[in-house]
Amino acid sequence: MQTSTAQGGNNLDPWYHHYADRAAGLKASEVRALFAVASRPEVVSLAGGMPYVAALPQDLVINAMDRVMREKGATALQYGSGQGVPLLREQILDVMALEGIKANADDVVVTTGSQHALELVSKLFLNPGDVVISEGPSYVTAMVIFKSYQAEIDHVPMDENGLIPAALTEHIAALKAAGRTIKFLYTIPSFHNPAGVTLSWARRLEILQICRSNNILVLEDNPYGLLYFDKPAPDAIRSLERDGVVYLGTFSKTLAPGFRVGWALAPHAIREKLVLANEAAVLSPSSFTQMVISEYLSTADWKAQINTFRGVYHERKNAMLAALDEYLPDLSWTNPTGGFYVWVTLPKQLDSKAMLPRAVKELVAYTPGTAFYADGDGRQNLRLAFCYPTPDSIRLGIRRLATVIRGELDLLDTFAGTGSLGAAPDRPGIHNPRFGGPPANIS
Amino acid sequence: MQTSTAQGGNNLDPWYHHYADRAAGLKASEVRALFAVASRPEVVSLAGGMPYVAALPQDLVINAMDRVMREKGATALQYGSGQGVPLLREQILDVMALEGIKANADDVVVTTGSQHALELVSKLFLNPGDVVISEGPSYVTAMVIFKSYQAEIDHVPMDENGLIPAALTEHIAALKAAGRTIKFLYTIPSFHNPAGVTLSWARRLEILQICRSNNILVLEDNPYGLLYFDKPAPDAIRSLERDGVVYLGTFSKTLAPGFRVGWALAPHAIREKLVLANEAAVLSPSSFTQMVISEYLSTADWKAQINTFRGVYHERKNAMLAALDEYLPDLSWTNPTGGFYVWVTLPKQLDSKAMLPRAVKELVAYTPGTAFYADGDGRQNLRLAFCYPTPDSIRLGIRRLATVIRGELDLLDTFAGTGSLGAAPDRPGIHNPRFGGPPANIS
Repeated sequence: MQTSTAQGGNNLDPWYHHYADRAAGLKASEVRALFAVASRPEVVSLAGGMPYVAALPQDLVINAMDRVMREKGATALQYGSGQGVPLLREQILDVMALEGIKANADDVVVTTGSQHALELVSKLFLNPGDVVISEGPSYVTAMVIFKSYQAEIDHVPMDENGLIPAALTEHIAALKAAGRTIKFLYTIPSFHNPAGVTLSWARRLEILQICRSNNILVLEDNPYGLLYFDKPAPDAIRSLERDGVVYLGTFSKTLAPGFRVGWALAPHAIREKLVLANEAAVLSPSSFTQMVISEYLSTADWKAQINTFRGVYHERKNAMLAALDEYLPDLSWTNPTGGFYVWVTLPKQLDSKAMLPRAVKELVAYTPGTAFYADGDGRQNLRLAFCYPTPDSIRLGIRRLATVIRGELDLLDTFAGTGSLGAAPDRPGIHNPRFGGPPANIS
Repeated sequence: MQTSTAQGGNNLDPWYHHYADRAAGLKASEVRALFAVASRPEVVSLAGGMPYVAALPQDLVINAMDRVMREKGATALQYGSGQGVPLLREQILDVMALEGIKANADDVVVTTGSQHALELVSKLFLNPGDVVISEGPSYVTAMVIFKSYQAEIDHVPMDENGLIPAALTEHIAALKAAGRTIKFLYTIPSFHNPAGVTLSWARRLEILQICRSNNILVLEDNPYGLLYFDKPAPDAIRSLERDGVVYLGTFSKTLAPGFRVGWALAPHAIREKLVLANEAAVLSPSSFTQMVISEYLSTADWKAQINTFRGVYHERKNAMLAALDEYLPDLSWTNPTGGFYVWVTLPKQLDSKAMLPRAVKELVAYTPGTAFYADGDGRQNLRLAFCYPTPDSIRLGIRRLATVIRGELDLLDTFAGTGSLGAAPDRPGIHNPRFGGPPANIS
């Protein structure tokens, strides 16, 4: 049987005119589309930010789940609280204490990955036309959510010490002068995705003070904070302030993303609403995966496991920077002190988005910088993820990338920039900081 | 440090004026509030709809998860596809085939319980002021979602054969005449929550035809369909029509809710948008819980397990109706042929919501009918869930309920209806069908 398309459908989608206005903001991200391409085994993917879960001994997980099922199976298989398993919420306090956070388990809400905490906070706060301030560049799928609630994203530039306070002040003033409603500052202070930089302690104080005096809520997203290399990142912004910060954490990077367990720590009144939104969205997060993680935290040496992950990622970052230094010495890039990502600045005549098909043909994948800007900026940048491939693969990938880049530059030389590559114009200014600037000190 | 409350906060919540308009719709449901009260061990709870997971042999689950971890651990611990695990999507086709559905795995989206499918469909379709048509009464937490997107709910009455087609036609005409935008019909055709009735086959055809001719999408929610007692429910509405129905299913009732795995089967263009919305919300549903369920479906006799659940719930329904017949013969109630719930109609001078505290004092809990109406209706009804307590507990609970009801009626007799109980006025009409009518034939 066929549904009539007479009343507002079209041939491809009979329900085309039935969607909510916000659905127009839901578009496939460039990163997602890349996953399909980059999953071919012969491609070295420096694109996706998948944690290297093979560094987690499987017996640790198997033992935890066996104990959960044998000792508390009926609870693990049942619906649970919309706020999350109470014992796990207590244990999350221990995790956050490593970054200077003092809190109460009653203010923690467990979510289906910290991604879902982002979704719930956005649903709770964003009216159409509201503004979210974020770093430029910023995390792709946070921006997808903000846009899906018809909010606009205002990018504030970074440098090697993270978000620039003076620029934040300027942006707030300009937005206020334009009569805009700023709902929150979305920030990844430690080991930024995609920029690979970390907000200094002095700036954490300064940025918090700017937000406080402008009555702007801070949404602090901290998936990578514990994955530092040589020394810890500065304490979380939330360690300085309880009432003005919603803090997001996750077990996806310190344990495994396949469980989908993250959390929000929020001021009490916001926390109450987050629980209601969580219940409406999923009734309760998975009791089973929460209890497996809780058991793991109770019985395994989880801090030693985080140290293992740190060692893996540190080695891979060193491999990536050494390969960049060897094969692409004329480019500039950030030097992350933790996390998963390096942010590379290309020669200004290149376009990372236009260059990608050629890279995939050469069997290397990356994420074009444009994915990380809401406004089309970022053509001169690309994100390289060192978290998943082995050091040898990373080296091979960077060598291939160098071939691609040299090929592009040769082509541009030959055709004097009139080719079909669509070289990006150089657009200096606060929306394109290229804070890689001169080649970074990679020591 | 304190956040200034000078700019629009209040003493309890400094961010009070920052929430989105839609947040006003997020209120704690009566059912949720009850969970805390009814969880005391001495209370017989006939309130919550928790499946009786103890009827699932734990070794079936333990074996499945051990195999998943030992054979595919690295995949299970990793991020997955935003659409869900491909093999599981194929297996879901086998589950749906039991209710007459022919489909393609490409049109299935795995979600974090079918609750999250409801959330995603609502996010995709509902603008503020849109109308969702649903049965009256309807599922509490679906209505919470619809309200959270600022949609209004129009209740169409049921009788013992489910939603009344003539009433649906009338409501659509009235809404259209009033210039309202109807986004979809939300319906639970089989073993309705809370009403315990099932839409007849003839009416499925008729209601689909009404929706088709009015260009209204059908959102068919079918958590209980396979949990019939003597004979299967009629085939799903989706078995009749591909392009006009979004069908929702779940493993929460046929396996266990603690995994949070459900799904949507949607027309292709809607499915594409659902995947994007799913990715934005949670990146991907839990690989681990999906793969455990997939392994269970591959290796265990899952149809026999569903038969086991059927036997458990059938016995409990019989116990409940026998106890109602013995202790409360003057009341009327529905006679469900599957699922979890009986819908009871009280004498018209009683108020199920006002009576609840007295019931809890007598150590029995139920859900007042008002929880299942968006418009405050339902005071003369209550929902009894027979899924979780044992037959003996059910009998004890109904005996206590009878004591409460007799006590209320005595009190009303004594004070001639002027007591503080606030007896509900009799409000006949399509918004309060009380389709229990005369005492049901419980054979």
